[in-house]
Amino acid sequence: MPSNKVVIRDVGPRDGLQNVEGTVSTADKVAMVEALAHAGVSRIEVGSFVSPKAVPAMADSPEVFAGITRMDGVRYEALVVNAAGAQRAIDAGADELCIAIAVSETFSQRNVRKTVAEALEEVAAIVAVASRTNTPCSAGVSSVFGCVFEGKIEPSAVVSLSRSLVDLGVGEIMLADTTGMAAPRDVHVVVPQVLAEIGSSATLGLHFHNTRGLAIANVMAGLSEGIRNFDTSLGGLGGCPFAPGATGNVATEEVAHLLALEGYDSGIDLNLLISAAAQIETALGATLPSQVLRAGARWRGHEAW
Amino acid sequence: MPSNKVVIRDVGPRDGLQNVEGTVSTADKVAMVEALAHAGVSRIEVGSFVSPKAVPAMADSPEVFAGITRMDGVRYEALVVNAAGAQRAIDAGADELCIAIAVSETFSQRNVRKTVAEALEEVAAIVAVASRTNTPCSAGVSSVFGCVFEGKIEPSAVVSLSRSLVDLGVGEIMLADTTGMAAPRDVHVVVPQVLAEIGSSATLGLHFHNTRGLAIANVMAGLSEGIRNFDTSLGGLGGCPFAPGATGNVATEEVAHLLALEGYDSGIDLNLLISAAAQIETALGATLPSQVLRAGARWRGHEAW
Repeated sequence: MPSNKVVIRDVGPRDGLQNVEGTVSTADKVAMVEALAHAGVSRIEVGSFVSPKAVPAMADSPEVFAGITRMDGVRYEALVVNAAGAQRAIDAGADELCIAIAVSETFSQRNVRKTVAEALEEVAAIVAVASRTNTPCSAGVSSVFGCVFEGKIEPSAVVSLSRSLVDLGVGEIMLADTTGMAAPRDVHVVVPQVLAEIGSSATLGLHFHNTRGLAIANVMAGLSEGIRNFDTSLGGLGGCPFAPGATGNVATEEVAHLLALEGYDSGIDLNLLISAAAQIETALGATLPSQVLRAGARWRGHEAW
Repeated sequence: MPSNKVVIRDVGPRDGLQNVEGTVSTADKVAMVEALAHAGVSRIEVGSFVSPKAVPAMADSPEVFAGITRMDGVRYEALVVNAAGAQRAIDAGADELCIAIAVSETFSQRNVRKTVAEALEEVAAIVAVASRTNTPCSAGVSSVFGCVFEGKIEPSAVVSLSRSLVDLGVGEIMLADTTGMAAPRDVHVVVPQVLAEIGSSATLGLHFHNTRGLAIANVMAGLSEGIRNFDTSLGGLGGCPFAPGATGNVATEEVAHLLALEGYDSGIDLNLLISAAAQIETALGATLPSQVLRAGARWRGHEAW
């Protein structure tokens, strides 16, 4: 029987803000990270250590790390794609490295100009750097539930890549649906196969975007398969919310609200979380897609609920 | 084993447009109803026959009914709250009457200035009118999963009201979450109890709003409980989409997309449905909340998916 404790990692400061160049100041990012921690979010992806030319909005990640007043029990994490970035992230104070890799060959080529095999070599190099400081590594595997270039992805490819990642020393695998192509049925197909392959040698988590409105249903499917680790993003930030048709990560407050209603313990104070979302919305000057941010928790005004 | 056929009733022309006075012409409403039917939606709530003073946006419902070119196999339905409205709806050509009633006493008092018992007397009067022409009656029971005034609603009250409605001759009961307070767990609690009470003496369906982002997960929960009838609204219209914080019914195209991915047969052509949603969005001149309208089906561009 899996525990009813669920661990949320808010990836908003990285996945959410990476496309928002120049709009959000370093101070606003620091305030966002601190507000998340204050609301009880125990894992936060603070920024990324990649080429500032490729992702200019993340160029101030070292300053964000330096600016945070840390809270006990919170892991401040950083996205990296190569060994040099890994070293910079650790030097900046990252508690954990989030490694980005894709299962789709086409996506990998387009995104990082590497085959999946070449990307795995980078993973090995990152893990080698991380091991010098015993820094844990988590791998986010994108295009697991479909690829915008290739369409359907075979679950066997996901299983095989997961095996390779675990063998390289990655302690956590987040199956990611960056382009919003997963349906609950796919979660019920893929997750058990990966669990059967990796067993308890690594933690398995899920990372959904709400591109087609299915993210919360996919989280439910993941919960029913025993998954207790989810990536979310404050306010539903992500996927360039300013572009027509684009939609972001599943909103942290929508997942926290769901978990509370379904009897799970996320350790999150929903009121503080909604305040944090309102704060980043103000900083951005844009309306975020989160419904719970708009409507509030269902028990609002009904303490006896 | 329940069938894999799911019946969608699009309530957009009524529940969706009832708060949008003066914006959508009668011709646009007729075009919306015809586009829905053309896309394969077999039940459409065309309008309502209530006081034009109370709901001015629905004052042209007789003209909408008169203007539709009907398709075989499609039921064109109308919302009513009393016997006089029932007669007007039947005279206008409604194939089925949708009766609105609430399980919460406070909501009932505020909405129609009647106790639930008094509202049941109106149901009896409506059914009597309908029976003269063998017009079927469906009852939408609001505040089933929580009330904005009372908070939690006891499932026993829902069971009892459902029993009363069936005894009065209502052939279908739609459990409605007009204010978006349901979570999947509630669906799993309430639906089996009502099913156990009414058995096969009436059809049980579900009507969700996406106020807190849970509607699709609730539809999934309903499907797993054997429910095969759902109310939806084109584009996610409803709940006054122009008011900050408000959100509409679950979008027809999001449910149709989910059903296709989960292996259910809704009989709907998703491309035609998305075109219909784009058409009403243009008529409204407002951005609707549907994600599938923005992003398209996941298999777009991937015929081999």
